[in-house]
Amino acid sequence: MTQSSLTSLLGITHPIIQAPMAGASTPAMAAAASNAGALGSLGCAMMKPDALRDLGQEMKSQTNRPVNFNFFSHQEPQSDAATGEAARALLKPYYDEHELGEVKDAQPTHFPFGEDICDAMLEIAPKVVSFHFGLPQAELVEKLKANGSVILSSATTVKEAKWLEENGADAIIAQGFESGGHRGFFLETEDACIGTMALVPNVVDAVSVPVIAAGGIADARGIKAAMALGASGVQIGTAFLNCVEAGIPDIHKRELLASDGSNTRTTKVFSGRPARGIVNRYMNDLRAHEPDLPDFPIMNTLTGPLRKASAGKDSPDFVSMWSGQAVDLNRETTTAELIQSLVTEAGL
Amino acid sequence: MTQSSLTSLLGITHPIIQAPMAGASTPAMAAAASNAGALGSLGCAMMKPDALRDLGQEMKSQTNRPVNFNFFSHQEPQSDAATGEAARALLKPYYDEHELGEVKDAQPTHFPFGEDICDAMLEIAPKVVSFHFGLPQAELVEKLKANGSVILSSATTVKEAKWLEENGADAIIAQGFESGGHRGFFLETEDACIGTMALVPNVVDAVSVPVIAAGGIADARGIKAAMALGASGVQIGTAFLNCVEAGIPDIHKRELLASDGSNTRTTKVFSGRPARGIVNRYMNDLRAHEPDLPDFPIMNTLTGPLRKASAGKDSPDFVSMWSGQAVDLNRETTTAELIQSLVTEAGL
Repeated sequence: MTQSSLTSLLGITHPIIQAPMAGASTPAMAAAASNAGALGSLGCAMMKPDALRDLGQEMKSQTNRPVNFNFFSHQEPQSDAATGEAARALLKPYYDEHELGEVKDAQPTHFPFGEDICDAMLEIAPKVVSFHFGLPQAELVEKLKANGSVILSSATTVKEAKWLEENGADAIIAQGFESGGHRGFFLETEDACIGTMALVPNVVDAVSVPVIAAGGIADARGIKAAMALGASGVQIGTAFLNCVEAGIPDIHKRELLASDGSNTRTTKVFSGRPARGIVNRYMNDLRAHEPDLPDFPIMNTLTGPLRKASAGKDSPDFVSMWSGQAVDLNRETTTAELIQSLVTEAGL
Repeated sequence: MTQSSLTSLLGITHPIIQAPMAGASTPAMAAAASNAGALGSLGCAMMKPDALRDLGQEMKSQTNRPVNFNFFSHQEPQSDAATGEAARALLKPYYDEHELGEVKDAQPTHFPFGEDICDAMLEIAPKVVSFHFGLPQAELVEKLKANGSVILSSATTVKEAKWLEENGADAIIAQGFESGGHRGFFLETEDACIGTMALVPNVVDAVSVPVIAAGGIADARGIKAAMALGASGVQIGTAFLNCVEAGIPDIHKRELLASDGSNTRTTKVFSGRPARGIVNRYMNDLRAHEPDLPDFPIMNTLTGPLRKASAGKDSPDFVSMWSGQAVDLNRETTTAELIQSLVTEAGL
């Protein structure tokens, strides 16, 4: 697969995807990325159909280039009520510390991609719909494809890449262990922590669709390396978090700029699924409890008020400061300028 | 730093180091690698001075090219006697299963690089002496350098890379999390698990000596990617384990060929320090006890008879089957042929 096969498939100029980062990427960022010739992405995992329809309108007013709407296709949580109550008890002292009242009920507040969301996406008809944690049911994938949307999803192993190809993905994001935020595994356990350098060539050998490298890529050197490994393009997340368009708390931005990359790790304490972020007090405090926490996204519901309160106090202690391992390359810029410099320096 | 700066420093033709792998790399492998224009390496961590002198003679009879003698410069173990006894009790059922009699005493049987070994290396005077887990005391490093040996060591973070440069390393191996065998960290905790894609460019930016990329590199694509990231050369380990010269049990070779890369993880259960290998029964059985095991290399002593007995039965259950994450690229070949194909395909 060549670089041109991917740009042609996605209708973009440069083989760069601005990663969808729910809670961090913004419509302004996605529009700027798409207008700069890359693929701008929107992290829509927590949105309801009406909000999505509004977002679709907003994006059409900001760019006529392809845009990627990203969703989660996770399994429904299996945790029992006792697990939820135990987690609520663990969080009670932190809620008290922040004067947040009763701990929220241990219930999921957002759901996997289903028919109602699919209907909204059929109306919006974006060029690209991407998924994390596998794919939604086959019928919905077929509808989106018949409607003209290109389907992407992330693989963390060769087995997942093959499964995605067999189940309709038009291109595969090979997500290395270096990536910030949620790891997209869905067939594997969390033990399969394969780095980008090892994952990409093995996935390229295993599938016939274009492969997009993700994880640890933050500058032109990373782009050139990904291409050398056989990728047709790259997905970059963390490097965009210090762009002015990023919708993250100031404390998160400062911690990103201060990190040398050695202080991130994957954790389940924020959402119930492993995600990579900068280590803070809360991650350390609850580390020993990780195996006993309720499933994604119940844990995400429980920690929401804490994350918000901590950000409001400009404290890093309870904020989910997602970050990939190449964060030491981050600098303050704009989305357009970042993409232009990547394109120029990588000779794309 | 350019590729030529490294080949010139090491006196080699191609910027490829066959990784030292104690218990797996052999004099025949090192000689074949060096004679093919790469840098052949010997894993000498468990050798005594007289055996080293014999090895020095043997290598001189097999190649007149540069060779790398590799040693460990770990801290002396700090574990108390109770920790050792608890580990002995854990291992007793496995010793019984293999009819191995009493579990060995919880004592280290090999020691960090010290004066006696240094004296042997001053006599042998190899082109390269490399270390894992930091560097030996400054006086010994100075003696080796004054004697004409080039000094290498591994860094797993930017901080470690800077420390190594300040303390006399002539080139730095940036060891990504993908690497098989022991992780070389020495200033960090085991949490700093940075992948090659993120580590290499950050280390290149932080030091002025040549940087050698290691971890997840197994074919020409990996070599080209490492160079794109700014490395001056690569160190490759796992790909050599299916060469005929590798001194590993047959069961280990077969498990390497069968792996798709998703079934390796780092474990302390074999040696007391985290090392990456193919998951087996023993790794799973003792996983929950990892935080409580005695320090490296005491645990290595305790598991020695089990590893040997398991290999003797052609069983994978107790063998330390070290492997990096790019193992899916492994194929059966010879050291000379592997290096020649890497050089040709990477256009070196």
